[in-house]
Amino acid sequence: MAPQRLQIPPQGIFSKLEKLSTIGATPEGGVRRLALSDEDKLARDQIVSWMLDLNLQVRIDQIGNIFGIRAGMENIAPIMTGSHIDTVINGGNLDGNLGVIAGLEIANALNSASIKTRRPFITGVFTNEEGARFHPDMMGSLVYAGGLKLNEALESRDKKDIALGKELQRIGYDGDLECGAIIPHAFLELHIEQGPILEQENITIGVVENLQGISWTEIEINGQANHAGTTPMNLRKDAGYCAAAVTTFVHNMALEIGNGQVATVGTTELKPAVINVVPGFAKLTVDLRNPDNEHLIKAEKKLDLFLKSLEDTQGVTITTQRLARFNPVIFDTAIVDTIEEKADMMKLPHRKMTSGAGHDAQMMARICPSAMIFIPSVKGVSHNPAEATHPEDIVAGVNLLLQTTLKLLQN
Amino acid sequence: MAPQRLQIPPQGIFSKLEKLSTIGATPEGGVRRLALSDEDKLARDQIVSWMLDLNLQVRIDQIGNIFGIRAGMENIAPIMTGSHIDTVINGGNLDGNLGVIAGLEIANALNSASIKTRRPFITGVFTNEEGARFHPDMMGSLVYAGGLKLNEALESRDKKDIALGKELQRIGYDGDLECGAIIPHAFLELHIEQGPILEQENITIGVVENLQGISWTEIEINGQANHAGTTPMNLRKDAGYCAAAVTTFVHNMALEIGNGQVATVGTTELKPAVINVVPGFAKLTVDLRNPDNEHLIKAEKKLDLFLKSLEDTQGVTITTQRLARFNPVIFDTAIVDTIEEKADMMKLPHRKMTSGAGHDAQMMARICPSAMIFIPSVKGVSHNPAEATHPEDIVAGVNLLLQTTLKLLQN
Repeated sequence: MAPQRLQIPPQGIFSKLEKLSTIGATPEGGVRRLALSDEDKLARDQIVSWMLDLNLQVRIDQIGNIFGIRAGMENIAPIMTGSHIDTVINGGNLDGNLGVIAGLEIANALNSASIKTRRPFITGVFTNEEGARFHPDMMGSLVYAGGLKLNEALESRDKKDIALGKELQRIGYDGDLECGAIIPHAFLELHIEQGPILEQENITIGVVENLQGISWTEIEINGQANHAGTTPMNLRKDAGYCAAAVTTFVHNMALEIGNGQVATVGTTELKPAVINVVPGFAKLTVDLRNPDNEHLIKAEKKLDLFLKSLEDTQGVTITTQRLARFNPVIFDTAIVDTIEEKADMMKLPHRKMTSGAGHDAQMMARICPSAMIFIPSVKGVSHNPAEATHPEDIVAGVNLLLQTTLKLLQN
Repeated sequence: MAPQRLQIPPQGIFSKLEKLSTIGATPEGGVRRLALSDEDKLARDQIVSWMLDLNLQVRIDQIGNIFGIRAGMENIAPIMTGSHIDTVINGGNLDGNLGVIAGLEIANALNSASIKTRRPFITGVFTNEEGARFHPDMMGSLVYAGGLKLNEALESRDKKDIALGKELQRIGYDGDLECGAIIPHAFLELHIEQGPILEQENITIGVVENLQGISWTEIEINGQANHAGTTPMNLRKDAGYCAAAVTTFVHNMALEIGNGQVATVGTTELKPAVINVVPGFAKLTVDLRNPDNEHLIKAEKKLDLFLKSLEDTQGVTITTQRLARFNPVIFDTAIVDTIEEKADMMKLPHRKMTSGAGHDAQMMARICPSAMIFIPSVKGVSHNPAEATHPEDIVAGVNLLLQTTLKLLQN
């Protein structure tokens, strides 16, 4: 069979997705499979079992990333795909899982058609992409790409003060492969969009050409708790008002900057949190993202200036902590072109887009040419039991990943 | 001795305040004496014991208010003073307690000087002024003044679903006096300011001529939780942004309305409260106060219009619940004049002022001419273990209450 004719049948994809969704299943139809939990171990065991069934060589690295390797005709840099199988506390069944299963199904298709490829093919599972239990997120790929020291990652602790390294040992996924030992020729990741754009525009494929830079800041505001009835407005040091002013400021700033800038205050905590007491303390988080680092830096500076103006005018003191900062990533234009070429060939409606979320491909882009394929999320919902993608879009995405991979494998 | 020469000595006031502060004392030096708790019972027993020591006739009414009655020469409407001894969860030692002890010390001074008064004198303790355990606050005086039915009040339940009526029985303060049975000729309450104005202006006495109207609203905002990175600003239904917009709106509205208008958002709760998720739900409370009901109604209407505009522009749905609404109270000008006259006589710096907080006197004003005397709060702090008033200000306030009461008693 000519490789372009190769097709991955739906049943394999959906039966594997279905099987994974039972591991850590929640009553609402979602899944709770925190990194290195018992559920994560069971899901990893399932993936390894599928890899062995597919005659892939299984290697586990020192941060617990799992690689299923299908040899090439030449012993040269492989084409790698992959994603993750850990979830947030109350997640859905596609985030991460789809990209992992797509890789397995590509190996299956290559086996079934007895196709020999020039380059080796690797499908991977990265440890702790979500960061819901251990920080930072995207840890497995970050350590693999040399962005975080292995020892630091193994020392990361969850809320119960359990070290990640201990948990890796406990579930038997403390492998011996050195992180970064295999540098791919290219890395590809298929993922659900987790946003509303593709569905709104009725487009099947997002060809991800770049990934937003992310800036997370935690802001603590100390004012003075006072009686809400007896304290005139001009004598207040209202930490709650200041938190609200920051929230509306970053919202309006994002609208004003445009150019893909988004700004979110996801958490706000007031103390003492009593209806008739002016809040004396507030803690909030600001999430700023932009695909252009210059714009992102501008947004960060504007926020800093605004906080200083609040200190000057509201009598409060403000401290900030940068919780995360990732520069934007520009994916490999040649791979992006290849994805578009194959999507055209398959007559799939597509558009270039920016990833608003972080992904393992973002970390792998540090060590090899990388890109991503997005498929639509119903109503843009993700990190939620209601996370869904229409089956035909899933099949389209997996087969586009196959066709793109096939071309790269023969490069 | 001429009544104008009568002086209450400091030691009686401070030894009683000291004694009360040991009942429910907290490690930080404050007091936790929730309404109808074991601590409240012990403090009530102490007050009753002091009343009996002073040869006062003790009457308990059906909502648990305690009255210590000193007979007058004529059997006519009495002059009543009083306040409360229940506290917030982590309160101070002066809020309420001072007004109760001042009444006892007036009886003591009258007894010591063998002064016979035309009218009877009553010093009272009102049940559950704070509302920290049972709602609504100012309950004892509200029921006494006919603003809330006794049965409804007795059915009020705490967080453990214990009925107030049951607790009254348990601690033995379910009295037989009918609520409202004794209508005073006048009611006076001495209280700490709980605000910063007197201290800032270096004035000893606040002559309280009116009390702000209070409007409490709970606002629930339903938007849509979404990924903070993948959801463009224009496709968001950000309940957290809307909560912040309400907070800054009411703040700016209060500054704009002026005329004593204050606005406070004391509580804000976001869900799911994750750094990288646009909040899909927000709940906040708005506390609006103004001494002029017209202004207060205007503020309420402006808030309503703003909430509607948020629904129209932000794609959220908003529901509101009025948690409390009290009209402003104008105290009796004749009593206010008498307080000023006596303060002048005692050479105490004084100013007219508005009470920003609710007090039992506000409820008693429904059934008899009433007014209040404020003394300064150090740094304006109250509802806090750090609550304090300089001793000389306490002595001045108690003696001003005495002089004012003496004049009214002979009316």
